[in-house]
Amino acid sequence: MNLTGNKQIHMVRRPVGMPTDDCFELRETLIPTCGDGQVLRRTLYLSLDPYFRLWMKDAAVDRAAGITPLMIGKTISEVVESANPKFAAGELVCGNDGWQEYGISDGSDLTKADPDIQPVTLLLGPLGGTAFTAYGAMVEICKPKPGETLVVSAAAGAVGSIAGQIGKIWGCRVVGLAGSDEKCRWVTEDLGFDACVNYKTESVSDALARACPNGIDAYYDNVAGSILEAVLEHINYGARIALVGLISQYNATEPPVGPNLWPLLAHNAMIHGFQNNDALGPQFGKDMRDWLAQGKIRYREHIVDGIERAPRAFMGLFRGENIGKAFVRI
Amino acid sequence: MNLTGNKQIHMVRRPVGMPTDDCFELRETLIPTCGDGQVLRRTLYLSLDPYFRLWMKDAAVDRAAGITPLMIGKTISEVVESANPKFAAGELVCGNDGWQEYGISDGSDLTKADPDIQPVTLLLGPLGGTAFTAYGAMVEICKPKPGETLVVSAAAGAVGSIAGQIGKIWGCRVVGLAGSDEKCRWVTEDLGFDACVNYKTESVSDALARACPNGIDAYYDNVAGSILEAVLEHINYGARIALVGLISQYNATEPPVGPNLWPLLAHNAMIHGFQNNDALGPQFGKDMRDWLAQGKIRYREHIVDGIERAPRAFMGLFRGENIGKAFVRI
Repeated sequence: MNLTGNKQIHMVRRPVGMPTDDCFELRETLIPTCGDGQVLRRTLYLSLDPYFRLWMKDAAVDRAAGITPLMIGKTISEVVESANPKFAAGELVCGNDGWQEYGISDGSDLTKADPDIQPVTLLLGPLGGTAFTAYGAMVEICKPKPGETLVVSAAAGAVGSIAGQIGKIWGCRVVGLAGSDEKCRWVTEDLGFDACVNYKTESVSDALARACPNGIDAYYDNVAGSILEAVLEHINYGARIALVGLISQYNATEPPVGPNLWPLLAHNAMIHGFQNNDALGPQFGKDMRDWLAQGKIRYREHIVDGIERAPRAFMGLFRGENIGKAFVRI
Repeated sequence: MNLTGNKQIHMVRRPVGMPTDDCFELRETLIPTCGDGQVLRRTLYLSLDPYFRLWMKDAAVDRAAGITPLMIGKTISEVVESANPKFAAGELVCGNDGWQEYGISDGSDLTKADPDIQPVTLLLGPLGGTAFTAYGAMVEICKPKPGETLVVSAAAGAVGSIAGQIGKIWGCRVVGLAGSDEKCRWVTEDLGFDACVNYKTESVSDALARACPNGIDAYYDNVAGSILEAVLEHINYGARIALVGLISQYNATEPPVGPNLWPLLAHNAMIHGFQNNDALGPQFGKDMRDWLAQGKIRYREHIVDGIERAPRAFMGLFRGENIGKAFVRI
């Protein structure tokens, strides 16, 4: 199987602020050969997610000492060779092979893709980890009741677009926040949000006051920072804020500050950080498949071709270049 | 009943930052006469609480226009004259008569003091509103389990001293934060906390690391600000933070910022603002009476004599001058 090389992208320098081209290096290594019990697979899709930036902050890297880790990431791959009876060539599997064209392991890190799921990229989108995050924090933290007002930041992103649609399915007034008029149009016209605020061109606090005449009961937060501060100005008694991401500060070079927490006390409200709870997996799978079958969940894919383009596409996540789920097709 | 005057203290100027003497004015008015259905009472004790500062921020005040409101506050009083069949002269009542020596109303704002409660000042301390706040946030938000580590700020104050003792009753490791060695000694030696950090002389983060070797599972916060930030550095997965006061910022002249919220996301933790839930009242009364009878709750009173001294004693709350519950005896 060593017909061509295995292209990989390594981190060779820790970013200061926004990642730059020189943090990454493309390398080509031999495609590994399957040892006893091993599974070799070829990457079809690589998920691009903001949390990689957090990993880059902490991962050991020292080019002079030869420590240049492979970039991480979830993958959908096709088995090309298997010396493990649990897997057969041609099967599709989900794994964590990172930024490379081929992965190899004993298979314990893989799950088989359900052949009924078509297209398979649903496993990175509405049936994948990002949508599971959206679902989990809605079920466990935001818990909006019918008629309540839910606000969602990064509403045109992979997580926010799903969280807001779940709010609509549950009968809420849903108001999104996004960074362009094009995104706002998609969110309101295609996804059915009641309103969407372009936070780059409007005063967020003023716009929320208009869009949320009954105040804010729940907030699904992917970004933190000044948008969270503006939301806090309009929360109702007992409001629930799910803190699922702090994208606004992932590239910070100074220790970030947070919002004044007085509104939490004044309104008996909470901010709850969210980590996925695997126990919710089966309930998520059932609900989301039903909603997809009923046409209640719409999604959009932001596809980039070729592992070479992963660094720029990853940087683009922080510039808001994607609408919907971003991934690399290989 | 107009034998002597009714001394009152009014707010005549909105404070900028820490309240100063010229924000208050002592006045003497006629003692009111009981009209039909009314209850006249003489104030015995006036509770002094930090939240008055929040009221001062928003209450209408305009000396030139004659708008100089009476300072607010909970009171314990003795009925001196009653034209209301529900109350008799000599009875003790709890009310909200504010900073004055006599109050009058139709009685609908009064509750009778249980004669079994001796001394009656327990109704401002372990059986009063501040202790109810301590109890409520422990029951509803902190929910520490036996063996977990609970941290309490303003640990020598009226609320914190009770919250920490409840933590001990529930089997927790309890670590306080207070502003003097004398307070820390009271908290550890008399109240039984496992440790107490003097936040004025120690690095809070370093001291918490030493005092909480297993991390922090719950935090009862009366102050917010830099102490909350230090606590967040040491929280465990699933930590619960009850935000019950933000004393550190009540006198702020600039909009305060908050802590970086990243630890909430990293540790699936929450900060929940707390407002009293009256439904807990009966359970609180039963538990606290039992604990007092069993000697499990200790308390200290910080008594100031004379309504004239209320302003300075109130300002002292923000300088940490009190140990235990502060009130004025009249």
